[in-house]
Amino acid sequence: MRSVRPDLVAMMTRIFPYVAVGCCLLLSTTMGQADLLDEAKSQFDIVPKDPTDLEHNPATPEKLELGKMLFFETRLSKAHNISCNTCHQIGRGGADGRSTSLGHDWQHGGRNAPTVLNSAFNAAQFWDGRAADLEEQAGGPIAGPVEMGSTADQAVAQLKGIPGYVDAFGKAFPMDNDAVTYDNIKRALAAFEATLTTPNAPFDRYLEGDENALTAQQKEGLALFIDEGCSSCHNGRNVGGGMYARFGLAESPGQQLLPPADKGRAKVTKNPNDEYVFKVPTLRNIALTAPYFHSGRVWDLEQAVAVMGRAQLGIQLPDESVAKITAFLQALTGDQPQITYPNLPPSVTATPRPAE
Amino acid sequence: MRSVRPDLVAMMTRIFPYVAVGCCLLLSTTMGQADLLDEAKSQFDIVPKDPTDLEHNPATPEKLELGKMLFFETRLSKAHNISCNTCHQIGRGGADGRSTSLGHDWQHGGRNAPTVLNSAFNAAQFWDGRAADLEEQAGGPIAGPVEMGSTADQAVAQLKGIPGYVDAFGKAFPMDNDAVTYDNIKRALAAFEATLTTPNAPFDRYLEGDENALTAQQKEGLALFIDEGCSSCHNGRNVGGGMYARFGLAESPGQQLLPPADKGRAKVTKNPNDEYVFKVPTLRNIALTAPYFHSGRVWDLEQAVAVMGRAQLGIQLPDESVAKITAFLQALTGDQPQITYPNLPPSVTATPRPAE
Repeated sequence: MRSVRPDLVAMMTRIFPYVAVGCCLLLSTTMGQADLLDEAKSQFDIVPKDPTDLEHNPATPEKLELGKMLFFETRLSKAHNISCNTCHQIGRGGADGRSTSLGHDWQHGGRNAPTVLNSAFNAAQFWDGRAADLEEQAGGPIAGPVEMGSTADQAVAQLKGIPGYVDAFGKAFPMDNDAVTYDNIKRALAAFEATLTTPNAPFDRYLEGDENALTAQQKEGLALFIDEGCSSCHNGRNVGGGMYARFGLAESPGQQLLPPADKGRAKVTKNPNDEYVFKVPTLRNIALTAPYFHSGRVWDLEQAVAVMGRAQLGIQLPDESVAKITAFLQALTGDQPQITYPNLPPSVTATPRPAE
Repeated sequence: MRSVRPDLVAMMTRIFPYVAVGCCLLLSTTMGQADLLDEAKSQFDIVPKDPTDLEHNPATPEKLELGKMLFFETRLSKAHNISCNTCHQIGRGGADGRSTSLGHDWQHGGRNAPTVLNSAFNAAQFWDGRAADLEEQAGGPIAGPVEMGSTADQAVAQLKGIPGYVDAFGKAFPMDNDAVTYDNIKRALAAFEATLTTPNAPFDRYLEGDENALTAQQKEGLALFIDEGCSSCHNGRNVGGGMYARFGLAESPGQQLLPPADKGRAKVTKNPNDEYVFKVPTLRNIALTAPYFHSGRVWDLEQAVAVMGRAQLGIQLPDESVAKITAFLQALTGDQPQITYPNLPPSVTATPRPAE
């Protein structure tokens, strides 16, 4: 038996309280981590790795290929120079990086172009939720006078005048005698757009149980995101997209960010209580899609977080909290869609030509 | 030994002259086919199946990826809404299907957007050949006031303000201390564009010896294309792109097709002899890239062929000849590039923002 060294015993005795407290703290932190993950799992959901299919509009390879063609098809616009991808760029987080988009005749759109990525997970479409789903949404910009500037009839006539599209619609909608319709344009676009999901974000890997998928700062940000109240609106699979809220619930963000003329959802519901109410946007891939808010006037994500704190929660978030929440938001960037640019069928002599 | 039937002998004797003449005709046709192929091989060349590399600007995977990003990069335009692909669409034969393109502030370009496909095989770039090569060309539209509306300095400042681009330029140009330069923007774009080739057109397979790659009508069209004189200008690998010619050499095509104010190459050379002289365009993928001519005013390929006959050759091609030549031109459509849409690096707070 080895002799016990009295000096070591004395030292151990001296440091024991600190070691014990340290162990308790570590245990507490570990418990906290497990609690945080459990809480996160209860409030959020992952983006599925498999392509998303739409109820009532099942995807087929032919429909998805057609939808992809239409998504890049500038001939759906009046002057043949604007496609869905112009404002919802596949390579830029599904948006266009402008406050509001430029449409036909260089007209400015009314609101910031929302991302098309993961949009199938939203409860409704557009900032004011005026479209129930992607199909209904898809018909809007094509026929929007300040967007693509065409009309439903013109879009159908355009595509009927391109033999390759008549063929592609026939294959995508084999039960239809007259397959080139505005409804089918919208169906094909919606089916393709539903595939534009971004799985495998660090936050998704975290929700699946990989606690190392988030940095310590991001986990602190997540805890703040929940504790401060952000997740009371920004929750679910899309970390948003599931409800409406008045912008400026606690305090007006000012006229630049909330232009008085845009009454938001009230225009849709005709209900004065819905004035300045907008859809809570998804925060997935938010680091890719500045500028922020429906007015697109805030270019800095930290600033956007601070604005939200004041306007929605009525709190002045400390800089450190803003930084942590922003770090968490960075963890919402998933794998971006890998899309092969489609070959679009050529116009022929009888194809309707661009209008000015 | 079987007996000879006298009735068969008599029949064979009767039909012998016809069989003999038929065999001679067949032989003659076969000889003509071989001559046609030999003549075609002497005047044209195939598009190589391997990616094209530029002398003095060798492709690397990093440079090609950067060039692809820049090709789809709307932040190279003043308002961040126009990219190279806006007017040279990968999915539409490398052009935009408009008479002239719409640029910054909805301004109309001066001439029809030429295809980017196979452009590395042209002897010079732009309709008036004012750029010697793709590198020189690439800098034009970015800084063109009626095109993307930016400037060389602004484009460099823009990309320097995006950390992902600083990184990508560093990898693409590892020998450069300050890699984000306008010259390197042009180099990367040119290297990527040089890969946008369309091998394996029916005409290429024919040139490689597959006489069945062209239909009988297309071969007759090829013979006319050579015999009537089209190939005296439209020859070489790009079936054009190798020389200049006055539009209206034999007869003016009229002011709509040849607007008097656009003096063509004379503006470049300051030589009055070059008035209304333009680069002979490639005819590869011509069936995909209506409308035609530098003015972009002819939407029908047969009409374009007829116009060329009168204006350049001084002949009124019979409708049948026009149809045959047009059928041959359809055989110039090759395999279109398969491009995966690039993920573009996000803007950050310090990134220059779009201007109006």
